[in-house]
Amino acid sequence: MSRAARRLVVIGADAAGMTAAGRVRGAAPDAEVVVLEMGRFTSYSACGIPYAVGGLVAGGVERLVARSPEEHRQRGVDVRLHHEATAIDTAAGTVEVLDQHAGQTYQLGYDQLMVATGGAPIRPSLPGIDLPFIQGVQTLGDAERLLALADQGCRRVVIVGGGYIGLEMAEAFIERGCSATIVDRGAQPLGLLDEDFGARIAAALRQRGIDVRTETTVEGFAPDRVLTDGGALAADLVVLGIGVRPRSELARAAGIELGVHDAIRVDDRQATSVDGVWSAGDCATAVHVVTGAQVHIALGTYANKHGRVAGLNIARRLADAAGAGDDVRSVPVAGTAVTKLCQLEIGLTGLRQATAIDAGLDAVTVTIEATTQAGYMPGARPMTVRMTAERGTGRLLGAQILGGPGAAKRIDVVATALAAGMTVADVAELDLGYAPPFSGVWDPVAVAAREATKEV
Amino acid sequence: MSRAARRLVVIGADAAGMTAAGRVRGAAPDAEVVVLEMGRFTSYSACGIPYAVGGLVAGGVERLVARSPEEHRQRGVDVRLHHEATAIDTAAGTVEVLDQHAGQTYQLGYDQLMVATGGAPIRPSLPGIDLPFIQGVQTLGDAERLLALADQGCRRVVIVGGGYIGLEMAEAFIERGCSATIVDRGAQPLGLLDEDFGARIAAALRQRGIDVRTETTVEGFAPDRVLTDGGALAADLVVLGIGVRPRSELARAAGIELGVHDAIRVDDRQATSVDGVWSAGDCATAVHVVTGAQVHIALGTYANKHGRVAGLNIARRLADAAGAGDDVRSVPVAGTAVTKLCQLEIGLTGLRQATAIDAGLDAVTVTIEATTQAGYMPGARPMTVRMTAERGTGRLLGAQILGGPGAAKRIDVVATALAAGMTVADVAELDLGYAPPFSGVWDPVAVAAREATKEV
Repeated sequence: MSRAARRLVVIGADAAGMTAAGRVRGAAPDAEVVVLEMGRFTSYSACGIPYAVGGLVAGGVERLVARSPEEHRQRGVDVRLHHEATAIDTAAGTVEVLDQHAGQTYQLGYDQLMVATGGAPIRPSLPGIDLPFIQGVQTLGDAERLLALADQGCRRVVIVGGGYIGLEMAEAFIERGCSATIVDRGAQPLGLLDEDFGARIAAALRQRGIDVRTETTVEGFAPDRVLTDGGALAADLVVLGIGVRPRSELARAAGIELGVHDAIRVDDRQATSVDGVWSAGDCATAVHVVTGAQVHIALGTYANKHGRVAGLNIARRLADAAGAGDDVRSVPVAGTAVTKLCQLEIGLTGLRQATAIDAGLDAVTVTIEATTQAGYMPGARPMTVRMTAERGTGRLLGAQILGGPGAAKRIDVVATALAAGMTVADVAELDLGYAPPFSGVWDPVAVAAREATKEV
Repeated sequence: MSRAARRLVVIGADAAGMTAAGRVRGAAPDAEVVVLEMGRFTSYSACGIPYAVGGLVAGGVERLVARSPEEHRQRGVDVRLHHEATAIDTAAGTVEVLDQHAGQTYQLGYDQLMVATGGAPIRPSLPGIDLPFIQGVQTLGDAERLLALADQGCRRVVIVGGGYIGLEMAEAFIERGCSATIVDRGAQPLGLLDEDFGARIAAALRQRGIDVRTETTVEGFAPDRVLTDGGALAADLVVLGIGVRPRSELARAAGIELGVHDAIRVDDRQATSVDGVWSAGDCATAVHVVTGAQVHIALGTYANKHGRVAGLNIARRLADAAGAGDDVRSVPVAGTAVTKLCQLEIGLTGLRQATAIDAGLDAVTVTIEATTQAGYMPGARPMTVRMTAERGTGRLLGAQILGGPGAAKRIDVVATALAAGMTVADVAELDLGYAPPFSGVWDPVAVAAREATKEV
């Protein structure tokens, strides 16, 4: 490789792309790093959008930016905002770029390419889906449009889909004084959890004044309403909360192999099927810690972790000391997620009974009721831990937690135990911290694990 | 062994003893189980005493009882309150018992003996130490006396020793409207933590109105004051908060071997040096997960866990199917502890730099500053994670956490990683839950671990 031609091009300036850029900047200081970004923001917290819309974030949308384009530039990263990558030629090693403001297209050569195009809200193919009052929640541009619509006085918000982001947005709009209706096809919202957990979340949302309509299918949109099989819902704003699909069209068109859910298939070094092309984040696959299967789970934590791995491996190829040492490898993911909805905390990781069976495992699941503090403490609130294990081996497979303040992050113990390949017997014996403001003397996670040991 | 002589005698009716009794009751239903208890309570939460004294526990001291003597009796456990074991004859297999109410002594034969005599507050040998206004915090009897003294109008409380329980009691008395002074010999209270952490806790206590006097030595007691090398302190009540020693005199007199800190030496089956005699809880030793060394750490979690193991192993010897299967074994302990003082949460587990060096390990320690929620959230509070690892191997050795709401229980991730023998590189990659109400996208524990990877 010629010394003159050491350039990394990054497509996409959010977590995965900018983390990779940052690692290359640090580990290969002589390399050129160019970042192409369609929008005008870099390195932001999309997960914070519901809180910004809900008015919780002083300073608004801009506060969600962890590092601005200017800060990246000061570190020597050539951030090009409103520059859209429109094609990749992996044979020539070039990206076709549209400078949106200039209206001009140019070719940009690369030695290494990081495809960090992220995810896009799933937009169902329904009549009226392109109406301007229908908004996804993915980028800070989306957040600005949502806030603008809210400030224009929209009062009736319909959320299509009861995923995390949809439910968080429903609560955010209630906080703003709007009405909020959630329409979900499933029996309960938050289909990632068991149905009875979803039902308890639906009850909490309803108690907060949110209209939760389950087993309801959206059939189309008119300028002022959402058409469903349960009748029309008046709406000033429609929020898409169905989920996220990988933005992999650019990669696909370039002949880069896709995997599950049409995400860009990467190995544990974050390398794609094409030499010199890397990917991470919401557009890329990962490997599940329990099943070993290829999965697509769009979580900001993975964008950061896997972007880092990609960056370190790219840097090895661009640095003066290229070739030294081994590639860094990503570790498998558990799908650990936490959220808080209407004072109810939710945590999940790994598999549950249904997904374990889907994976061909002989699974057993137990449920225990506990409290977030010692039962005699005034702040004690109910909390439920449901734990799934493999019959015969006792191997821990996953857990779901639902409860009051302090409940959700206990899922991290389960996530750690999954990474270690522990059995439920191991988990039952963990030396977890105890004091009355935090739990009973047997931590709820350990209690669930103990219960599971009786069933496996 | 003759079928007529299958009796377990348990000395001490708190967590370790009653957990063992309960396991034997369940697994060896034909065995006789007799529990000897000096006081009048069974199975209570000593850790809840500060909260009961502080007036937080509706129902008072009685609410701290997890299971009453009557409930145990209904399950077929012969609980004898105000019966004090005064001697053990391991050759004869008998316990000498003083029936305090009858004033009579009798001999009670056993086939298996569980010594669960617990701990006692350390009482320094100082002039006036036996004055009635000096009170430990160990049993519910102590709690009753503390509340009675408080109700009699004591206004000036001096706490001798800045351990957990002492600090919690200081806050409790402030809650009751008393004044509280903590006297500690060390540079800072909570000597289990690094000094700068102790200093931050001292500052929080002082801000709450507690008079914290460090590097001050108590020299004696007069009926209305505590004499120190920094002058006399007026006092209506003195609380001992120096720590807990094992109550092992009875075992020692019976020729049962003692170990570190004069705790009853047990193996990982909770067996003592004498066949048929078992022990667990505050009176017994344990093994440290990092060092493998014998330790004495008085924590209610161990009383429960190790009491269970003792009970299962005793049951094997008393049940009809005696001899089947293997003995159950306790797992090593990490010394995980959490508490909350004046809105400041504290967690620790494993070793810190000083104790790692004492253990002969080549250790490095890093400290990171983070927030309890995403930085842009209104509830975000500072939190510090300090992590210690072994140089060369990168093996995780322990951590200390200090911060706002939600900080302390994150120590459980470290405790779980210690049990799994993880390196800090492993911890840095854990799939921990993220959402803005719970942390930044990189969990503070993972951030500390990543930082540690650079130093090991």
